[in-house]
Amino acid sequence: MSSSSCSLLSLRPEVVALKKTLDDFVENRVIPCEAEFAEHLSKRHGDDRFTMEAVPPCVERLKQEAKQLGLWNLFIPPRLMSHVPDEALKPQIPLSYREYGILCETMGRCPELAPMVCNCGAPDTGNMEVLMEFGTPAQKEKYLLPLLRGEIRSTFLMTEPDVSSSDPTNLSTTLKKRIVGGNVEYTLTGNKWWSTGAGDPRCRVAVVVARTDTSGSSNSNKHLAHTIVLVGLPHPGVKVKRALTVMGYDDAPYGHAQVELNAVSLNNDDLVLGEGSGFRVSQARLGPGRIHHCMRAIGMAARSYELMLQRAMERRAFGKYLWEHGGCQEMIADSASDVEAARLLTLSCASALDDVGPRIARDKIASIKVTVPELCYRVVDRSVQVHGGAGLSEDFPMAKFLAGLRSLRIADGPDAVHRRTLALLEIRKAKKRMQDELKRSRL
Amino acid sequence: MSSSSCSLLSLRPEVVALKKTLDDFVENRVIPCEAEFAEHLSKRHGDDRFTMEAVPPCVERLKQEAKQLGLWNLFIPPRLMSHVPDEALKPQIPLSYREYGILCETMGRCPELAPMVCNCGAPDTGNMEVLMEFGTPAQKEKYLLPLLRGEIRSTFLMTEPDVSSSDPTNLSTTLKKRIVGGNVEYTLTGNKWWSTGAGDPRCRVAVVVARTDTSGSSNSNKHLAHTIVLVGLPHPGVKVKRALTVMGYDDAPYGHAQVELNAVSLNNDDLVLGEGSGFRVSQARLGPGRIHHCMRAIGMAARSYELMLQRAMERRAFGKYLWEHGGCQEMIADSASDVEAARLLTLSCASALDDVGPRIARDKIASIKVTVPELCYRVVDRSVQVHGGAGLSEDFPMAKFLAGLRSLRIADGPDAVHRRTLALLEIRKAKKRMQDELKRSRL
Amino acid sequence: MSSSSCSLLSLRPEVVALKKTLDDFVENRVIPCEAEFAEHLSKRHGDDRFTMEAVPPCVERLKQEAKQLGLWNLFIPPRLMSHVPDEALKPQIPLSYREYGILCETMGRCPELAPMVCNCGAPDTGNMEVLMEFGTPAQKEKYLLPLLRGEIRSTFLMTEPDVSSSDPTNLSTTLKKRIVGGNVEYTLTGNKWWSTGAGDPRCRVAVVVARTDTSGSSNSNKHLAHTIVLVGLPHPGVKVKRALTVMGYDDAPYGHAQVELNAVSLNNDDLVLGEGSGFRVSQARLGPGRIHHCMRAIGMAARSYELMLQRAMERRAFGKYLWEHGGCQEMIADSASDVEAARLLTLSCASALDDVGPRIARDKIASIKVTVPELCYRVVDRSVQVHGGAGLSEDFPMAKFLAGLRSLRIADGPDAVHRRTLALLEIRKAKKRMQDELKRSRL
Amino acid sequence: MSSSSCSLLSLRPEVVALKKTLDDFVENRVIPCEAEFAEHLSKRHGDDRFTMEAVPPCVERLKQEAKQLGLWNLFIPPRLMSHVPDEALKPQIPLSYREYGILCETMGRCPELAPMVCNCGAPDTGNMEVLMEFGTPAQKEKYLLPLLRGEIRSTFLMTEPDVSSSDPTNLSTTLKKRIVGGNVEYTLTGNKWWSTGAGDPRCRVAVVVARTDTSGSSNSNKHLAHTIVLVGLPHPGVKVKRALTVMGYDDAPYGHAQVELNAVSLNNDDLVLGEGSGFRVSQARLGPGRIHHCMRAIGMAARSYELMLQRAMERRAFGKYLWEHGGCQEMIADSASDVEAARLLTLSCASALDDVGPRIARDKIASIKVTVPELCYRVVDRSVQVHGGAGLSEDFPMAKFLAGLRSLRIADGPDAVHRRTLALLEIRKAKKRMQDELKRSRL
Repeated sequence: MSSSSCSLLSLRPEVVALKKTLDDFVENRVIPCEAEFAEHLSKRHGDDRFTMEAVPPCVERLKQEAKQLGLWNLFIPPRLMSHVPDEALKPQIPLSYREYGILCETMGRCPELAPMVCNCGAPDTGNMEVLMEFGTPAQKEKYLLPLLRGEIRSTFLMTEPDVSSSDPTNLSTTLKKRIVGGNVEYTLTGNKWWSTGAGDPRCRVAVVVARTDTSGSSNSNKHLAHTIVLVGLPHPGVKVKRALTVMGYDDAPYGHAQVELNAVSLNNDDLVLGEGSGFRVSQARLGPGRIHHCMRAIGMAARSYELMLQRAMERRAFGKYLWEHGGCQEMIADSASDVEAARLLTLSCASALDDVGPRIARDKIASIKVTVPELCYRVVDRSVQVHGGAGLSEDFPMAKFLAGLRSLRIADGPDAVHRRTLALLEIRKAKKRMQDELKRSRL
Repeated sequence: MSSSSCSLLSLRPEVVALKKTLDDFVENRVIPCEAEFAEHLSKRHGDDRFTMEAVPPCVERLKQEAKQLGLWNLFIPPRLMSHVPDEALKPQIPLSYREYGILCETMGRCPELAPMVCNCGAPDTGNMEVLMEFGTPAQKEKYLLPLLRGEIRSTFLMTEPDVSSSDPTNLSTTLKKRIVGGNVEYTLTGNKWWSTGAGDPRCRVAVVVARTDTSGSSNSNKHLAHTIVLVGLPHPGVKVKRALTVMGYDDAPYGHAQVELNAVSLNNDDLVLGEGSGFRVSQARLGPGRIHHCMRAIGMAARSYELMLQRAMERRAFGKYLWEHGGCQEMIADSASDVEAARLLTLSCASALDDVGPRIARDKIASIKVTVPELCYRVVDRSVQVHGGAGLSEDFPMAKFLAGLRSLRIADGPDAVHRRTLALLEIRKAKKRMQDELKRSRL
Repeated sequence: MSSSSCSLLSLRPEVVALKKTLDDFVENRVIPCEAEFAEHLSKRHGDDRFTMEAVPPCVERLKQEAKQLGLWNLFIPPRLMSHVPDEALKPQIPLSYREYGILCETMGRCPELAPMVCNCGAPDTGNMEVLMEFGTPAQKEKYLLPLLRGEIRSTFLMTEPDVSSSDPTNLSTTLKKRIVGGNVEYTLTGNKWWSTGAGDPRCRVAVVVARTDTSGSSNSNKHLAHTIVLVGLPHPGVKVKRALTVMGYDDAPYGHAQVELNAVSLNNDDLVLGEGSGFRVSQARLGPGRIHHCMRAIGMAARSYELMLQRAMERRAFGKYLWEHGGCQEMIADSASDVEAARLLTLSCASALDDVGPRIARDKIASIKVTVPELCYRVVDRSVQVHGGAGLSEDFPMAKFLAGLRSLRIADGPDAVHRRTLALLEIRKAKKRMQDELKRSRL
Repeated sequence: MSSSSCSLLSLRPEVVALKKTLDDFVENRVIPCEAEFAEHLSKRHGDDRFTMEAVPPCVERLKQEAKQLGLWNLFIPPRLMSHVPDEALKPQIPLSYREYGILCETMGRCPELAPMVCNCGAPDTGNMEVLMEFGTPAQKEKYLLPLLRGEIRSTFLMTEPDVSSSDPTNLSTTLKKRIVGGNVEYTLTGNKWWSTGAGDPRCRVAVVVARTDTSGSSNSNKHLAHTIVLVGLPHPGVKVKRALTVMGYDDAPYGHAQVELNAVSLNNDDLVLGEGSGFRVSQARLGPGRIHHCMRAIGMAARSYELMLQRAMERRAFGKYLWEHGGCQEMIADSASDVEAARLLTLSCASALDDVGPRIARDKIASIKVTVPELCYRVVDRSVQVHGGAGLSEDFPMAKFLAGLRSLRIADGPDAVHRRTLALLEIRKAKKRMQDELKRSRL
């Protein structure tokens, strides 16, 4: 739609310039590498798709370019900037959540490559945020710095195959504590899956959510029941059992792995923020991550929409261009509106994060986590329909986008959980309003 | 959702104060009069519902209050402020479209009374805008001033019963020109309907869109085919044939009338901007009007949503409060998200109007004209469902809101026309982009 | 679609002839009276709309015609035929539920008049079924015979304004028992609403669902908590407080009333099937009633669809007939499919009722109670859109159909309750299947 | 839902027995082979997935079993039974379209294996129907018999990558005619894709739709513009360029290939029904094929629905089984209703095919081609959601079903084309009705 003058979309002049650099980089450098990336991977099969050889040369080349262009680590939010241990790894222009959202949309146009080569890919960003905010100096030295430099990758182990992970109290991975010779020792045992990046050959650390074994203890505070631990990889007790596929895509070389944790020995230094930190750290980690997902989703939708317009201008049926058909016009109009709505909702949420922080804005996060993937899915789906069979093939990015967006309705909490969260927060506020009015009327 | 810090919702301090005044006025003065209004009307039947006696006393009282509170004529946009002939009739704090949008939502909470008693009701606002921008001094004196003072009301005659009015080239009401003794004379003949306010006993002027009879002329410029004329009311050639109902509501005492124009004699002074002005004036008039509709729609949705929360906290079924049921939670969450989306889309469009004007922003206007009534309808419809039978009765405002929102998908252009407009604008821009790229690549 | 040879739609030759008679009657005799009916009522206001004078003469005339044509009491299902106390009042050709469904669709094309003049209107049909199946000879003599003859009308009092009636355990209307001089006496006290037909001047009996006051008794069987009683009308303890409107329609002269029950004295003869019968009788009554609603809904959709086709062939916009526009074609196609789906689902459910009875088929009843009104609403809504403003006016039947179909999502149990019922029945069957498999595998 | 007694679902006793055999075979023999099939293929990569070695041993074993159980070639419709050249290849119990539909649903529960091992898989069934109805004795000998015996497979080449194939007049593959030494010679040149089965190593014949080159001829009858030809495979002029993926699935070893036709020499014997037969043969072929797709879609939905129930009974979240949550109950109820609607619509259409043939029933075919895949997609999608991440993985069949069902909205004509077809047929019938009424009224 008309190049908007909406304040939510406004940028400082230096960020306008940065966005221009990023737009050019993604359009002219990253997207042209998609074919090389696909071609490179298509020659490798099974486990070979998760090796250093499977990572195509373009990846490292693009990372260097991104660094030189100042497009590196843009995700770091202002409040964590002081936690970055090395000035050189900070972005030159720190971005607010809202500003990052606008740039992150551009990365989302090529979700497979662009976020990664700008060191802004999941789950690394969330893990780096955890380490910045809660990591010890030693943990930062060992894991955060190489991550910030893009030398290693990481994974986040939360979801489990045997329980409904939408309710975290279900988690069965256990962190068992023993006192051995005056020293505290921990043993981590469990089964995880949908561990994005765990299959990546460059993955060197796993951030794991575990249930603290409190048997024998009188502590039953539900919010202290979980602990976050770090496990350096590769590790003899950590076994990547298999790569999962999402609607037929294995997302190599990063992948979504099923991982076995077989009595992994840990000690105090491996805990993030001590025992019982799980709830607090998870909440801090997941909120911004959910927004990042939405930002990238808009990029997928926007690119699919532009491809839809192009196709509608090129193809003819029944004596007219596709865009001249009423049905196609409706698909175009609705998609334009859907992209606009998704963008405004996401940036309004990001703006709230900037102003009031992720805890207070968690109603907005829950709202967009449900709304935005659905809006974007509809746009991509319509683009598929306008493209016909080609839209489902590997000749266009839409089919893969559909898989990614469909999985977003489950990943990081299924829709049902976020709807419930939002409704309960709304009811809580409504109750408070009623009580306040009651008080006022009594005075 | 969390009281937002979104820049689209931000207001200057003086407007914050004004909004507070308006909120209080609507909540504590206007809404309590709804019952009186309904009761007063329920005693009058048929044509008696469209008489001065049918206008309940509360209306005039509330108008005086609104004036005293500085809530009068707030709709006047900055660019037209200098066209207001009387300083005293200008709002003390001129509002941008975006700011007005935020306040207009409050009026929309009581769409039957609040806009009217603030002199911000349709179709008067659009007609006043036409007179401000294009009226002659005499026209302003005769019609604009009494309208701005709230002494008279007006109607807009565009839609016709015998043709598909979604395509303006179909209009059959004719303005015939004759030269009589060296003077130009016009005769206006036709049949109109959905003429909001034409039944109101205070209605003193009709703004009419007519096809200029160009038979015998060589001029066939489609854009000059229509002319806007003013007809003072009552007029012997203008007959209100009947009041139409919208899903059972007659919307007395304003109503939506069917009107016969029987050879109404006019002269040059009655034309707005001369012959062939129809397209230009209509476009200028309808854009902002469509936004106003959306703003009020959000007010209806927001109020219905609050009533839904309240009902969910009061009623019990199957051993739980309604809000404790998963299905009800989903309705609450989706409604919170829908209201948010409707609001952001509308204010973003209003913001574009402020910055680039209604012509360039017509893609956004077309988009929200389709999207916002649908989002708001869904919210009101869910509120009905949570209320059960009561939701469809006159005990709550939702049933009437449904009728109003459903009619918005037709009024001022049906969805199909706005979708088409938006799609064609998008295609035009995409073509231009392609040509620009082609040029660049040739250099 | 192509005149179907689907077995669900097949009819015995004598029923084909009966259907032809009914089709002609509704099309050429009943529908032409709609205008007279509306005109007649429009001259009466307020309470005057619920008087004998408000019943237009065409009603009695059409009833006589229907009787003579053999179109009277067609609703009586085979299993109740032997309970009809007078041969002359039985339909000459007893119809299965499925056959009746096909004919009932025709009546639904004119839902305001056709069912009533064929003595097949709600709530009379359900009340007559109750009396046929469970009434004492005296009750049949007093109420059933005049109802079957079409001399009086009836009402069903279940829903209450102060509780969520979707959960029957909430009902607060109380039937209090006292032993006075060795005689049992009952007192009925409560508040009801959405009592269809209670405002009709010909209404002579109310079938009331009340909570049996078991205070002091040890009986707490939930299923015996309610009792059905008959109250002859008018009655000094029964006060019609007001007529409710459904989206602006008062549905005079039948109406949906709010009714006060002020210590109505009753005795044993007024109970249906004795104390505690409420659950059993209600279930028997409501199932078939819900199907009848769906059958009529299809009639509304089918008629709206035909009007849509006609409009699309008559009107032009942008140089083409409406039906030549792609968007309009989609509305036509989807509506054709929706009507077909609604019809097949309803007749398949009716067919199950014929074969296994309403108790076993209650999963199908729950399913269509949710699905069919929604499918039909969509069709009528699209027809409105194709008609533009006219579609919402009184010039076409669609606006009123919308109100009726919207209320069906609430009446006789809101969607949420029927969805819950269906899901729980499905889960119960799935559990049984699992246990059976387990048993088999153990053998 | 309750085991229905709906006449659309009724079967002759011998077909009931046959269905029982098929149900057992699919459940206990075919579905258990899915894992072997997947495992076998997972070890082969790229082109190796389309070799004889890639066809797992279970396939041939199951084919033999199906033959012995009388489950072979069940698809052959009664009207073509006499065209089967070998008695032994006919099904012992010839099935009507409706009866086959009910059995085909069972095959659809395992769409990858069951239809193929019963010799009822696409595109073979459609190609066999063409050969039965229109093939010469020589063509039947050469291609039909081995196909009926399950010795070879076939492909159907219609869609093209470079044009919008939804409008067949766009096809650019050309059949050029030359007279050489008194003999007629043809040359076939073009580019095809989405040629299902073309990659299968057992594929021995391609049925190709080509534009007849009529340059120099005065014949411009649009309906004679296309011709169907048979090309024996492998052929030096036919090159399988690549296997396409559908949302990440390559559907090996059958696949959907892109195929180059490089000046393939043909003669009169290779034409089906002579020049210009394309339209007639295609119409005959595609109608039943579209119904088969819908029948299988219902199988996918039904199986996904049962898995959803099972998961809802096994998993717990927030202290309750999933099925105890209101949101989950809604998904169950809506899915039960959707499966029912899809089934009734499809069988009603099949029933019409039995009675009036595919040409007259083409409105119903168009209707279900749009409606049924969407209904089934919704069911499978809800099942995914109830399963969480597992639902998108290869541990459950739903993800692949989603890909298959999504592609059905494009394959064999996109939704837009079928909606258009249905609407135009409806308008044509409405026009005829209007003219008939006009005639009647004139008499």
